[in-house]
Amino acid sequence: MTASGLRLRASAPHGVGAAAAVLAAGLIVAVVPVSSQSPATPSRQALIDDLVVANRILANEGVVDGYGHVSVRNPANPERYFLARAGAPALVTSTDIVEYDLDSNATTGSATGYSERFIHGEIYKARPDVKAVVHCHCLDVIAFAAAKVPLRPMYHMGYFISEGVPVFDIRESAGITDMLVSTPVLGRTLARVLGPRSAALMRGHGAVVVADSLHVVVAKAYYLNVNARLQSDAMQLRGSGVTYLDPEEAKKAVQTYERSWEFWKSRLPR
Amino acid sequence: MTASGLRLRASAPHGVGAAAAVLAAGLIVAVVPVSSQSPATPSRQALIDDLVVANRILANEGVVDGYGHVSVRNPANPERYFLARAGAPALVTSTDIVEYDLDSNATTGSATGYSERFIHGEIYKARPDVKAVVHCHCLDVIAFAAAKVPLRPMYHMGYFISEGVPVFDIRESAGITDMLVSTPVLGRTLARVLGPRSAALMRGHGAVVVADSLHVVVAKAYYLNVNARLQSDAMQLRGSGVTYLDPEEAKKAVQTYERSWEFWKSRLPR
Amino acid sequence: MTASGLRLRASAPHGVGAAAAVLAAGLIVAVVPVSSQSPATPSRQALIDDLVVANRILANEGVVDGYGHVSVRNPANPERYFLARAGAPALVTSTDIVEYDLDSNATTGSATGYSERFIHGEIYKARPDVKAVVHCHCLDVIAFAAAKVPLRPMYHMGYFISEGVPVFDIRESAGITDMLVSTPVLGRTLARVLGPRSAALMRGHGAVVVADSLHVVVAKAYYLNVNARLQSDAMQLRGSGVTYLDPEEAKKAVQTYERSWEFWKSRLPR
Amino acid sequence: MTASGLRLRASAPHGVGAAAAVLAAGLIVAVVPVSSQSPATPSRQALIDDLVVANRILANEGVVDGYGHVSVRNPANPERYFLARAGAPALVTSTDIVEYDLDSNATTGSATGYSERFIHGEIYKARPDVKAVVHCHCLDVIAFAAAKVPLRPMYHMGYFISEGVPVFDIRESAGITDMLVSTPVLGRTLARVLGPRSAALMRGHGAVVVADSLHVVVAKAYYLNVNARLQSDAMQLRGSGVTYLDPEEAKKAVQTYERSWEFWKSRLPR
Repeated sequence: MTASGLRLRASAPHGVGAAAAVLAAGLIVAVVPVSSQSPATPSRQALIDDLVVANRILANEGVVDGYGHVSVRNPANPERYFLARAGAPALVTSTDIVEYDLDSNATTGSATGYSERFIHGEIYKARPDVKAVVHCHCLDVIAFAAAKVPLRPMYHMGYFISEGVPVFDIRESAGITDMLVSTPVLGRTLARVLGPRSAALMRGHGAVVVADSLHVVVAKAYYLNVNARLQSDAMQLRGSGVTYLDPEEAKKAVQTYERSWEFWKSRLPR
Repeated sequence: MTASGLRLRASAPHGVGAAAAVLAAGLIVAVVPVSSQSPATPSRQALIDDLVVANRILANEGVVDGYGHVSVRNPANPERYFLARAGAPALVTSTDIVEYDLDSNATTGSATGYSERFIHGEIYKARPDVKAVVHCHCLDVIAFAAAKVPLRPMYHMGYFISEGVPVFDIRESAGITDMLVSTPVLGRTLARVLGPRSAALMRGHGAVVVADSLHVVVAKAYYLNVNARLQSDAMQLRGSGVTYLDPEEAKKAVQTYERSWEFWKSRLPR
Repeated sequence: MTASGLRLRASAPHGVGAAAAVLAAGLIVAVVPVSSQSPATPSRQALIDDLVVANRILANEGVVDGYGHVSVRNPANPERYFLARAGAPALVTSTDIVEYDLDSNATTGSATGYSERFIHGEIYKARPDVKAVVHCHCLDVIAFAAAKVPLRPMYHMGYFISEGVPVFDIRESAGITDMLVSTPVLGRTLARVLGPRSAALMRGHGAVVVADSLHVVVAKAYYLNVNARLQSDAMQLRGSGVTYLDPEEAKKAVQTYERSWEFWKSRLPR
Repeated sequence: MTASGLRLRASAPHGVGAAAAVLAAGLIVAVVPVSSQSPATPSRQALIDDLVVANRILANEGVVDGYGHVSVRNPANPERYFLARAGAPALVTSTDIVEYDLDSNATTGSATGYSERFIHGEIYKARPDVKAVVHCHCLDVIAFAAAKVPLRPMYHMGYFISEGVPVFDIRESAGITDMLVSTPVLGRTLARVLGPRSAALMRGHGAVVVADSLHVVVAKAYYLNVNARLQSDAMQLRGSGVTYLDPEEAKKAVQTYERSWEFWKSRLPR
């Protein structure tokens, strides 16, 4: 059995062979070379490959659509992070991945970056514990931000919601804008609202989600959205009488979500 | 039968290699007709090919089902527009595309036209700024028209809703009908209700959406529908206490939606 | 490439030519043999093939799941109708089709019939105008039957709902049962509740839908369900203040739904 | 490549021919262990193969996601049950299936088990009539547990809900936990709450469903969830005025759901 979403990448970075393999396979395949020339390379390339899978999972599971992005901090250099160049997450391949410093200046390549990359850089600056960041327009949370109804944890898969999910209203700090977190200052303000938590909603926009790994951040973004749907359903049935996870239960219910990752990866279109 | 989602342009940088690669990848190809030697044709053919893609995206993303249509104004002759002959959008190919004058008389071919093509012609007459029109039975807006609840912009992707989305009630201008905008007079009345805006709902029927490009009109139709769903969710949570985009925010939040188009195109069935 | 859900049986009347066409087209095709042995056969076989497509469309579009059935009256003999033997609609092939008389006794084959085939036979008896019948557990109407909220036409695609959609409560006529319309008497009672209309809900069960053609009955079953969802959405927004199609509008808005059929057929899994 | 939805039941019950057919069908194959020469093995292997299908159906139909599990009692030894090793249900193959005794100790292999396998073992102990168990985070029931709104049978497919669906609140018996039923004691408490019924909800977690066969338990888990959605819809329309199945109707409406199984099996990705 093998993974959809895998990238075939022989030795040369995206040479003719790789292209042919991709065409033949009809999908992008991530086969990590058995032993790469440089000892540091595999880990970097493996991380980039995983970031591509993360992009595709988020799109395939409906957490992002044509918009939204996901980044991961470079473990070999915590002052750097990886993020795709501007484009739809479903279409990201490893050649689209750019390395940024924490001021969100590209350190590799010259591709156009996401105008909201400052979300990532400023959170990595403010939160050394954060290793991965998702920004999404996840649909089910938008109503909660607009209605100013606090998200609460409906089940153990949404345990982190117990930390509270603040709402970042860009207007409170920056007045009238195009709603985009497209400057370092706005990124810092968002990071401040997020504080030590796992997620913040963005009024009239979407959400930002952080975690200590790429796999976990993808799952938190997914379950943040699912939890919103469940909470909406429960509130329709019983309004303010809904029972949420107890804060102490939530603390104990920490998830790795690793089975989710494997499941979602297996569902990627080939 | 021909291409979902593929635009093959002989002169474009893709070249023969791209065509071969696409063929290898298992996509279905829109073969450029022999007449493509003429200098004016490529652009016309490219637009027609894009219109085919627009039809298929709208069907694949659930904005239209067996019914609904999308047109684009001929940039080489603003007194003409392109629209498929009567048929389900998902099945449209480039040979189904007919050119109409603004009175909605076919200038090419003799295929049966959509009885509601006057929606397109009359809007193009009234709105020189409009380059593309979608008519859909997009499900999530129908409840809003029936409930006379005004649509409001829930997030930046629905920024244009801030212009207001009037409801065209065919009965107010024409009494008892079959609900179809199947005459020039009805088309003009709808255009008048639409006014300078991006969208109007049609009571007991669906919506019409306009934009200055084909890609943008597809996205506006899509996000009009998504926004309706989000607004319904938010109103369930908090009724009249929902916070919508500020009109000034909406003005600044103009979208090209180009990443949506690329994403949707990539999702077309092969 | 070949069919999901297709059972090719070498000995079946389709013959090699038909099988090849199916394989080549990658979907179920009503390929009428150019000249069949008997002059009556093509029309009969074509109808049976269309009935197979109807079964598959209903399953693929979620109108039926593992349960539910669709029949068509034999145009060559109005005292007969065609219905699959007991089985999941998605898996029906032409060899599964049985001919019944109007007392719902099989006139061909000896396969186990649906225990609820009397729905079909008794309606054909009571309604000479009816040429096709669907019984479904279509999910969105079940809440309406349980809540005793009358269905009302939300848009022109649901025009026939304007005739009224009565609710058949099996308990009122037969007391405590297993909820199934599994006798001629129950079938007659259901037919009486249906009266001259297009559809009746069945409390705690689903619905029955009738039409003067197979294509139209499939579409009416589909749009009955869609209309229920839209009505539920609209009532959530505005309760009793929702505007429905005017009865006179509904009379004029009769649909053939032929584009829906072509669209749904094109979406069948290959 | 051939049909999903194949009903392998030629002459030999799942013999070598069946295995070959499955291979041809592109399904993930339960490789028959070498020991299959033994006369008792085929039935064991057939059951394991069916358990693999059950895992995949539950995932494919959205009853489980990356989490959740399904087990079946060993008919040859009622003191044993089969359950996959820890992993996402969609990815389970026959080599992942482990045999457990009723204390939930593995009797074969050394793979890591689900930490919640005690749900299965303790229910098998307490309920000799139970032959199969599903644990799921089925989304639509979670709101009901949180809102403490009792599930009621909306239609005959949910007949078993008439027995009552108690809510297991882990906190009432064990105080603050990680929400998981990961000890024999917790399993026993859950079994006690379940009592003689078909299903129990688990507050802040999901549900457990039992039946006298693997096919039926899969269907009960599926329809438990569907019924919750229908009940939520009906209560939105009419609150406490909804008509549910009469308890006597429910007793008569017992389902085998065999057509559902065939349908779902036919929908599995190849």
